[in-house]
Amino acid sequence: MSERFQFTVLKTDGEARVGEIRTRRGTIPTPAFMPVGSAGTVKAMTPDQLAAAGTDILLTNTYHLMLRPGAERIARLGGLHGFMRWQRPILTDSGGFQVMSLAKLRKITDLGVTFQSHIDGATHVLTPERAVEIQCLLGSDIHMQLDECIALPASRKELEGAVARSLAWAVRAKRALHVELEKGTARQATALFGIVQGGIDPELRARSAEALTAMDLPGYAVGGLAVGEPRDITLETFRLTARRLPADKPRYLMGVGTPIDLIESVARGADLFDCVMPTRSGRHGQAFTWAGKVNLRNARHAEDSGPLDPNGRCPAARDYSRAYLHHLVKAEEYLGAILLSWANVAFYQELMLAMRTAIAEGRFATWAAATKAKLVPSER
Amino acid sequence: MSERFQFTVLKTDGEARVGEIRTRRGTIPTPAFMPVGSAGTVKAMTPDQLAAAGTDILLTNTYHLMLRPGAERIARLGGLHGFMRWQRPILTDSGGFQVMSLAKLRKITDLGVTFQSHIDGATHVLTPERAVEIQCLLGSDIHMQLDECIALPASRKELEGAVARSLAWAVRAKRALHVELEKGTARQATALFGIVQGGIDPELRARSAEALTAMDLPGYAVGGLAVGEPRDITLETFRLTARRLPADKPRYLMGVGTPIDLIESVARGADLFDCVMPTRSGRHGQAFTWAGKVNLRNARHAEDSGPLDPNGRCPAARDYSRAYLHHLVKAEEYLGAILLSWANVAFYQELMLAMRTAIAEGRFATWAAATKAKLVPSER
Repeated sequence: MSERFQFTVLKTDGEARVGEIRTRRGTIPTPAFMPVGSAGTVKAMTPDQLAAAGTDILLTNTYHLMLRPGAERIARLGGLHGFMRWQRPILTDSGGFQVMSLAKLRKITDLGVTFQSHIDGATHVLTPERAVEIQCLLGSDIHMQLDECIALPASRKELEGAVARSLAWAVRAKRALHVELEKGTARQATALFGIVQGGIDPELRARSAEALTAMDLPGYAVGGLAVGEPRDITLETFRLTARRLPADKPRYLMGVGTPIDLIESVARGADLFDCVMPTRSGRHGQAFTWAGKVNLRNARHAEDSGPLDPNGRCPAARDYSRAYLHHLVKAEEYLGAILLSWANVAFYQELMLAMRTAIAEGRFATWAAATKAKLVPSER
Repeated sequence: MSERFQFTVLKTDGEARVGEIRTRRGTIPTPAFMPVGSAGTVKAMTPDQLAAAGTDILLTNTYHLMLRPGAERIARLGGLHGFMRWQRPILTDSGGFQVMSLAKLRKITDLGVTFQSHIDGATHVLTPERAVEIQCLLGSDIHMQLDECIALPASRKELEGAVARSLAWAVRAKRALHVELEKGTARQATALFGIVQGGIDPELRARSAEALTAMDLPGYAVGGLAVGEPRDITLETFRLTARRLPADKPRYLMGVGTPIDLIESVARGADLFDCVMPTRSGRHGQAFTWAGKVNLRNARHAEDSGPLDPNGRCPAARDYSRAYLHHLVKAEEYLGAILLSWANVAFYQELMLAMRTAIAEGRFATWAAATKAKLVPSER
């Protein structure tokens, strides 16, 4: 395994592309979906179940881990991979998004952001440099720059400010990682991704994308989307942004999404995703299947002896009846959350695999149309 | 595999005995511990984890399952084993204990007990006959008679009444199972266990045990103990009761207990146990180990990179650091409950195996003394 982070596009089909990210902890076939392990665990799943579901890379949250158990503690314990028993690649977000959405009394300046922990109210400071330092302490494979993520709708002036600040922070993050590399506290293979901001304003998105591209970072994320704006706008903004990013670098669409969102985004050139949807929905009794979303609370499943997916590879989807899953969900049993989280992550990974195969075989558009038609009849 | 329920004592060592219960769904080496799967699932564990932990038989609760999803529904779905994906033996309790402890507005007469569901307030009736019918619908391998279990301390008159009523109900349960067998709605291999009552009164316990013994049932439980009385009294009452029961039938001490309780009870002739302790404690951040109980909430584990048991067979006990378990418990993550329940059930099964081995090798007393000494230094 090379010590260097490397991305290769193997084939394109329209704007969709299939490729691979090589890291020193393994190769990630793209497009790839990252389950979210906020606090160093993907909720209600064991690492073995995650791997069995076909997961090649996880995302964990810098914000959650810096507050509890603390980045220095994880470093003393040997790093995040050993701590959570996940030896494949990990991407860590920068903490910026959670500071905006979870922390109390936050104050943002050009220097960084000061906030109070949602757990115990203690005051913390996150700067672009500290975000890199934390990610080095965790030992993740892909780092995200600290960015300013603002809620939509926002004024042009607010958006411009967030774009400018995020760019300045990207420069500081790159410099900070360089310092860590010089000190020997980061590995050569560590990849820092920049984050494009700019809301749904094409001109601002272009400005942000071009400035980041000039920095020649190993990968680029598109942030600040899927935060409440209409889906068409999300997708169109992503498409325009992706076209401004270099073709030979991975494009990560943050926080997306439903199975259909993933298909639409891959069609527009996305390579990497993260979303809490499969696990959160699983904890709320909802399953993703090739025939659409299934709400297992629904009484129609009470005597259904069939599984979620008789042809699936995942034991949770293949081996347990809908009647049993319905019972577990109604009785609020742990096993309901366990099995549905597992089945949903496995479904998401099967979906990514199917997309990669369709792109590799040059039939992505046909596959996408047929699959979207099957996925539509979903149940509330 | 024989179609008949069969118990064999293979060796005795003092009053302790090692043996096996043969059922059509597999052999249960005794002394055996049954994890509790109240609502058709052992909380926070998959069936695969239960089996990997060394579990040969489960207990499920008639009370919970009759209320939700309902015994007739489980029968229509093909029975409890398929429903919960557990193909090894299952013992079902009769529902009596839960009616007393969980149900609202219960009213007991000689006929049976009328109560309101703790889930939706609906009125239900449980008679000795209905308890057998439900257990036949579930398709469990060992049935428990409906009994009257009263809280201690109780007056002599109350205890006498409960003994008399429980005996009358045992006779009706035996007759009811005979009727089900005649109808073909129960399998020949189904074993009905009687339950000895009598509080901590030796004379009443003897009367109850002797009357049940005269019924020549396939096994006998000792109920109404470990309900708040001092441990010495529990053990002495069990010992006296066990001596009144036939040596060639299994003796099941209901609802017990801690690891040391299990050792002390096996020393007094117990063959079968059930208890929520390993799983409930696991959900509350406590682990059972060969060095005593460990409270993972305790800050002393925060940077302990060692596992619960480096020599254990269970991945949950062997492969994850105490620091990670501490973090999961503090963060109230599902995975904390999952791993600790698994580790605890595995520990209980390792304890049973160690007892069986010590008895088979004629060194139970020595083993018990050494093991109890190791288990004592427990942590709150």
